Amino acid sequence: MLTREACEALDRNDPLKDKRDLFALPDGEIYLDGNSLGVPPKAALARLQHAAETEWAKGLIRSWNDAGWMDLPLTLGAKLARLVGVEPQEVIAVDTVTINLFKLATALLARDGGAIATEAGEFPTDNHVMEGVARITGAPMHRVAPNTRPADLPEGVTVFIKSAVHYKSAEIADFEGYEAEAKARGLNIIWDLSHATGLVDLKLKAWGARYAVGCGYKFLSGGPGAPAFLYCAEDQIGTLEHPVSGWLGHKRPFGFEDAYEPDDSIVRWRTSSPSILALSALDGAVSAYDGVDMAQVEKKAIALGDILLEKAEALGLEHACPGRGQRRGGHVVLRHEQGYAIVQALIARGIIGDFRAPDLMRFGFNPLYNSYADVFDAAEALADVIETRAWDAPEFLARKAVT
Amino acid sequence: MLTREACEALDRNDPLKDKRDLFALPDGEIYLDGNSLGVPPKAALARLQHAAETEWAKGLIRSWNDAGWMDLPLTLGAKLARLVGVEPQEVIAVDTVTINLFKLATALLARDGGAIATEAGEFPTDNHVMEGVARITGAPMHRVAPNTRPADLPEGVTVFIKSAVHYKSAEIADFEGYEAEAKARGLNIIWDLSHATGLVDLKLKAWGARYAVGCGYKFLSGGPGAPAFLYCAEDQIGTLEHPVSGWLGHKRPFGFEDAYEPDDSIVRWRTSSPSILALSALDGAVSAYDGVDMAQVEKKAIALGDILLEKAEALGLEHACPGRGQRRGGHVVLRHEQGYAIVQALIARGIIGDFRAPDLMRFGFNPLYNSYADVFDAAEALADVIETRAWDAPEFLARKAVT
Repeated sequence: MLTREACEALDRNDPLKDKRDLFALPDGEIYLDGNSLGVPPKAALARLQHAAETEWAKGLIRSWNDAGWMDLPLTLGAKLARLVGVEPQEVIAVDTVTINLFKLATALLARDGGAIATEAGEFPTDNHVMEGVARITGAPMHRVAPNTRPADLPEGVTVFIKSAVHYKSAEIADFEGYEAEAKARGLNIIWDLSHATGLVDLKLKAWGARYAVGCGYKFLSGGPGAPAFLYCAEDQIGTLEHPVSGWLGHKRPFGFEDAYEPDDSIVRWRTSSPSILALSALDGAVSAYDGVDMAQVEKKAIALGDILLEKAEALGLEHACPGRGQRRGGHVVLRHEQGYAIVQALIARGIIGDFRAPDLMRFGFNPLYNSYADVFDAAEALADVIETRAWDAPEFLARKAVT
Repeated sequence: MLTREACEALDRNDPLKDKRDLFALPDGEIYLDGNSLGVPPKAALARLQHAAETEWAKGLIRSWNDAGWMDLPLTLGAKLARLVGVEPQEVIAVDTVTINLFKLATALLARDGGAIATEAGEFPTDNHVMEGVARITGAPMHRVAPNTRPADLPEGVTVFIKSAVHYKSAEIADFEGYEAEAKARGLNIIWDLSHATGLVDLKLKAWGARYAVGCGYKFLSGGPGAPAFLYCAEDQIGTLEHPVSGWLGHKRPFGFEDAYEPDDSIVRWRTSSPSILALSALDGAVSAYDGVDMAQVEKKAIALGDILLEKAEALGLEHACPGRGQRRGGHVVLRHEQGYAIVQALIARGIIGDFRAPDLMRFGFNPLYNSYADVFDAAEALADVIETRAWDAPEFLARKAVT
């Protein structure tokens, strides 16, 4: 088993080691929940303050042009494009994951007809919003078993929603295999990149992916409820019209025309005036990825997870995620019937993870700011909490509402 | 005609005079574009900074519970409810105006069937997004002449979109008359309050209005692209299901269930994780309305507009808004074939208005921070620019892209 000294040596040799100082890390805490809400990069806080106190307060209405507000969904989209492996003009920062799933799914159904498929156990919003899509479009909806492959989907399915990284299990999808099967039967996959962007070495274009949505507030650390993004392959943009056709997707928004005419570019996926404050924070946040090789990020995430998994094995804990050395998303999931109380006891010691019913403890690792030593210390604390039954105290056992 | 001294006297006796200091007004400028993007209240900037640097950076994931993030759309909604004259539990701060129009219209059509009507010349997004609604629901859409009354709408219309204040003309709708006619024929009006909230003395409940959407970044001064809000009368909430059915509208969002079950309350109109940074700025901004009587706000807005209209008459300028002494929204619209250049020349003198093609100059007044003396000075500058033909200079005549 790795010693703390060995972890410190790994940190010293870490090609990402300089990134940690870019983040406003909480004092005295080891934050392992960046898969849910990332720690703010200092540049996100600075950019936000500049947007508020200079661009808004001083520039006022002029900043729509002079501070680049109008184009921010596109300039930010171009930065996100690099992180997911597509062309700059194929991504727009816009709306939320749920709304973007709705937009893409309804547009694809309008173009191709057919039915929708989602997986049981997917992140809830993916299932929920597709029920709404089915209701409004009249398209049949199939909820299939987890990990049903495109080739095995029911007859008639044209739109399939699939998480790149599963929010609970951290399993990574077989992107290329899925896309090949999807194309063979003329099916569209909408990839939900929420738990993958900023962590997994995504090569969407190379894998043949044409549609995706992603989240700004997890590994990207863009702030609570940060704007989402939407990817649509350039050769598909002109073939799709979404129904939430607001004025800022218009070809001439400042023509103030009655009739809608969608822009020819990725701009057609824009809906309405976006929060510039929220976009600015995310824009500042993604600067933490400047010069970063995503392959190194993914590799380090696995190595960090392996440290905790090794300790879990020694403690006799079952894991509910891919095991040591295996490709997985940025979190590790351990089972314990007292998982809730254990997570609370760890939080009391400044080690922040989260709990998912009924018995899953989730610990997320952001390779840009979590060190090997962080994870070593967290693993030691976990062992101590379990071995000393520190979790067995009224303040840890009493359940609060969980978010 | 009022003198500057008379305007200063009006300012001294203004019941809203203490509000001006709550705003971070731009140095050396008279800002008459608060109908498009409001000046930041100092409390909005402070609240935003607190949300970012304390709640996010220090509280991190815990702030969803501990800092009230999860309930912010509701606690803020309750404050907005007072400003529009409805009950606290009937408003939620959520999504954008366009998305909320889409949600309400599709939900009403799913419940009642029938057709949609919009006005020609409405704010573009209202027309554009209803085209999308029509396309996806198959409902017929009628674009009727401006100011067509509900009684005169085509047979079969069940959903009618109507701005409370017209974005160009500043005309105020006949709320009670429209609602009475709508009810007589079983028609639903969705009020677009974008140019009205925070300015007009709205009494939606008393007027019988049941559905509305509104904007956070105009008179409410919540920041560029601030979150919007949605009002649904409490007795209608349970009758409507919108198709953008994301997990945060679920009755048990943290049950992580596959099947969607909408919440019973206004929460069902929530879609997905909102930008807490954007909501916090808006939440801080609306505190400027604490203790404010909206009747006084509306009254002062008319008085401010009258000063400019009086000067415009003296200059022989036509107005394209309700005239002196008449009820109108928070802006005045004047016509001049060189309107673009005149607005540019005024901006160069620190007087910020805006221009709408082909020949409309718009000047908005926020009674919380614009003084009578401000408007007097702006009127004098307008007279000077026109009388001296100061607008007739290459730098003012050359058109830039307009936002």
